[in-house]
Amino acid sequence: MTFNAAQIALLINGKIEGDAEASVDSFSKIEEAKEGQLAFLANPKYEDYLYTTKASVIIVNDALVLKGKVNGTLIRVPDSYSAFAALLTRYQQMMAEQLTGIQQPAHIASTAKIGKQVYIGAFAYIGEEVVIGDHVKIYPNTYIGDRVSIGDHSVIYPSVNIYHHCKVGKRVTIHAGSVIGSDGFGFAPQADGSFTKVPQIGNVVIEDLVEIGANTTIDRATIGSTIIKSGAKLDNLIQVAHNVEVGRNTVIAAQAGVSGSTKIGNHVMVGGQAGIVGHIAIADGVRINAQSGVSKSIKQPKAAVTGTPAYDYTSTLRSQALSRKLPEFERRIHELESLVRQLLAERV
Amino acid sequence: MTFNAAQIALLINGKIEGDAEASVDSFSKIEEAKEGQLAFLANPKYEDYLYTTKASVIIVNDALVLKGKVNGTLIRVPDSYSAFAALLTRYQQMMAEQLTGIQQPAHIASTAKIGKQVYIGAFAYIGEEVVIGDHVKIYPNTYIGDRVSIGDHSVIYPSVNIYHHCKVGKRVTIHAGSVIGSDGFGFAPQADGSFTKVPQIGNVVIEDLVEIGANTTIDRATIGSTIIKSGAKLDNLIQVAHNVEVGRNTVIAAQAGVSGSTKIGNHVMVGGQAGIVGHIAIADGVRINAQSGVSKSIKQPKAAVTGTPAYDYTSTLRSQALSRKLPEFERRIHELESLVRQLLAERV
Amino acid sequence: MTFNAAQIALLINGKIEGDAEASVDSFSKIEEAKEGQLAFLANPKYEDYLYTTKASVIIVNDALVLKGKVNGTLIRVPDSYSAFAALLTRYQQMMAEQLTGIQQPAHIASTAKIGKQVYIGAFAYIGEEVVIGDHVKIYPNTYIGDRVSIGDHSVIYPSVNIYHHCKVGKRVTIHAGSVIGSDGFGFAPQADGSFTKVPQIGNVVIEDLVEIGANTTIDRATIGSTIIKSGAKLDNLIQVAHNVEVGRNTVIAAQAGVSGSTKIGNHVMVGGQAGIVGHIAIADGVRINAQSGVSKSIKQPKAAVTGTPAYDYTSTLRSQALSRKLPEFERRIHELESLVRQLLAERV
Repeated sequence: MTFNAAQIALLINGKIEGDAEASVDSFSKIEEAKEGQLAFLANPKYEDYLYTTKASVIIVNDALVLKGKVNGTLIRVPDSYSAFAALLTRYQQMMAEQLTGIQQPAHIASTAKIGKQVYIGAFAYIGEEVVIGDHVKIYPNTYIGDRVSIGDHSVIYPSVNIYHHCKVGKRVTIHAGSVIGSDGFGFAPQADGSFTKVPQIGNVVIEDLVEIGANTTIDRATIGSTIIKSGAKLDNLIQVAHNVEVGRNTVIAAQAGVSGSTKIGNHVMVGGQAGIVGHIAIADGVRINAQSGVSKSIKQPKAAVTGTPAYDYTSTLRSQALSRKLPEFERRIHELESLVRQLLAERV
Repeated sequence: MTFNAAQIALLINGKIEGDAEASVDSFSKIEEAKEGQLAFLANPKYEDYLYTTKASVIIVNDALVLKGKVNGTLIRVPDSYSAFAALLTRYQQMMAEQLTGIQQPAHIASTAKIGKQVYIGAFAYIGEEVVIGDHVKIYPNTYIGDRVSIGDHSVIYPSVNIYHHCKVGKRVTIHAGSVIGSDGFGFAPQADGSFTKVPQIGNVVIEDLVEIGANTTIDRATIGSTIIKSGAKLDNLIQVAHNVEVGRNTVIAAQAGVSGSTKIGNHVMVGGQAGIVGHIAIADGVRINAQSGVSKSIKQPKAAVTGTPAYDYTSTLRSQALSRKLPEFERRIHELESLVRQLLAERV
Repeated sequence: MTFNAAQIALLINGKIEGDAEASVDSFSKIEEAKEGQLAFLANPKYEDYLYTTKASVIIVNDALVLKGKVNGTLIRVPDSYSAFAALLTRYQQMMAEQLTGIQQPAHIASTAKIGKQVYIGAFAYIGEEVVIGDHVKIYPNTYIGDRVSIGDHSVIYPSVNIYHHCKVGKRVTIHAGSVIGSDGFGFAPQADGSFTKVPQIGNVVIEDLVEIGANTTIDRATIGSTIIKSGAKLDNLIQVAHNVEVGRNTVIAAQAGVSGSTKIGNHVMVGGQAGIVGHIAIADGVRINAQSGVSKSIKQPKAAVTGTPAYDYTSTLRSQALSRKLPEFERRIHELESLVRQLLAERV
């Protein structure tokens, strides 16, 4: 789709400087933009690019004072970054609204209920008694097990697998390859050293406005529900074990893992590759640094921890820095020992 | 399906107290159960819920002495937890037995041999000369490459990919999105800094009774086989490199990784996010703590290790604890130095 | 396919000792080979197997002096390992060349351009305006989003998902379950503690000769491109965040993760489970040890680092070793303190 500067200015409530007819059909960074592209300038560090960019339309801050001639059309707004982001969001919504209908072949059980304005891609599998809300998009090669429900406006990308009885809220996004509701890892050890599977008959509940990255796995509860609360954001390749709860607006970075039955509070931030043991609780607002290993409950809200095992951020950084002085410490202890030996010898 | 208390008591060999006609159609935790649900009480900590639960049927221990009135029907057995688990297992088997037949469209090569009572979901791909045993379930969107064999009673969940020539035993479960038999990571460095691929012509052999979680990857051997031995249990997002052997009844938690050609013994337990380097051997019964980095062979059976690089559990915990006293050690060394300086000065 | 010793000798330019008509139809390790299989002997450590192997044809070094009788036919070459690898590569090419055509049902948009001698498996999805080069193989259950391009001779294994607008070069291999072009993890925090998604409108560019393992995820750029440069090799379950650049011939082992906007140089080696923070640069030829956590830029080419936070290899190993002497240091400090106390007391 092509837009001209006047249309864009209208959408973001901006003022035009230059040719209002200048048209664009895609977006770019200011330093890489070609003719026919839209860019923005927010960080003054990049201002030099403004005078060399080939972008046809550039969104800039009201406050910007030009130091040279600009080839493209300027659109001035109070906050160029926010305006650009809003424009992208609006653009993506427009694109998404065009994606509707059911591509054949898809497998849709006769007992499934499908909402209005839904997209179901080719080779998608929709099981028995599944309930799919309005404006939902289910991409190709996706598996939606029996009795799953998916709320309005949610987007399920290709190759996502949602096992039976799981519940997905409204405006949820799940990226490609993620698995929701696989069996929790529960096995009872037997006298002969083998293991008997503990049936996992719970489910996964994903509340509204959650986003889940690619190839992430969230296991179903043994009994009850593994719960991802409203507004939580999970990155790629994350493991969430059975009966875990992830709090509201909590953010978990890629490759982190949460063991079984642990409860993570609201507004928590978990760094990449961090691990959290099972059966503990993490208070609201806690920050867990990347690669940390959290081995016990964190009760203090907004605590910041790091390391394996994880302790408070400041003292751990201190210890880590001092561990690099261990060769020096060894030398100093050795010197002290020989001086003290000398003093002892001289006493007599 | 609906069952009444009398039917359940018969299945688990229990004694009924209350209405033998009370019926249930699903399972729940005792504290969350609704009318028409079955619950159990094993841990005395939860006994209070027994007198408030809305569950229609509750399995309890023979030894339990009631302290109040219970609304639902009780079924008494020697061990309520085991009875409940056995009931779930039986229930899941009954559900699973109903799942048979081939959903269309599926791609089944004309040279493939398919056993009796098999389920093959829509959009599953079964390659040339594949052999599938009796009672096997292959969920939708699954890829079974040429000449793969899958033993009786195995379950392959959706979007699993099994490359050509791999062998899967009997009663194996593989969860969604796992990849079995992708190429091992082998590249020969060239004089110009580029890499030439080393062909990976082996396969993966998964023995009987193995369970593999979601989105786990097991690479095929360069030559020969990567082997997962009987009864081993692997969690989600695990990496098993080429030519690795995982021993019988060994358990590996989520996000752990095993590098090429390493041999892991029987009854080993590997914690989440642990890493094991290539070309080493781990003795039987070894326990590797979560996030450990094992950099050399562990020859002592039943050793417990932790840390990166991994050492024995007890001494590592001691060192980790002491590393937190480094600021104190620095201060004490500093004080000693000034005292000794003073003593030296006073000598003359 | 069956080959005889004469045909193989011709392909690898070797000299035959024994029956030139001896035929083989598969490959094996020398210690496990059966009749009708081809093996090789490179490492003198395994020479004993030469005299017991059942392999029908064995490739050996010119320099080998036989110490006993060999049952199979020998083929002598200057370097038996290289000859064997070359033979495997040639064999796999022959196998691959046979795989062409489009299996039905596949979804191929009418606006997609498909090259010559292409294989497209059943249940593959090819979006609008996709461009697929010659000799490309796209396995079943794969999703190729709108406007993606894939260069000549590339192989896309089953269940790979490539989101819209991404570019894949020539002779690229992507293993099963990998996700290319999922949204970068970008959310703007709001005053109420919730997050607003930052649209991710860039793409992923994978240059020629790249190999990507199974279940790896590479996020699209916020704006611009996430780039994997020519010849880079990525293992399984790796996370590459938005706007990252991975340099030419750089090798990344399984389960490593690279955070947003980080630039990794050429010929870098990243160990398994290593993590690299965002917005830093790694110089050419750097080696990052397994499980390291790299928290700042590494400017020195060919530096070797390890640990979390990562420092140079040698000093870190020293510190790690000394950290195991902390109990001893504590004891020595304590002894010094009591001796010094004694000396101080004696002064008067």
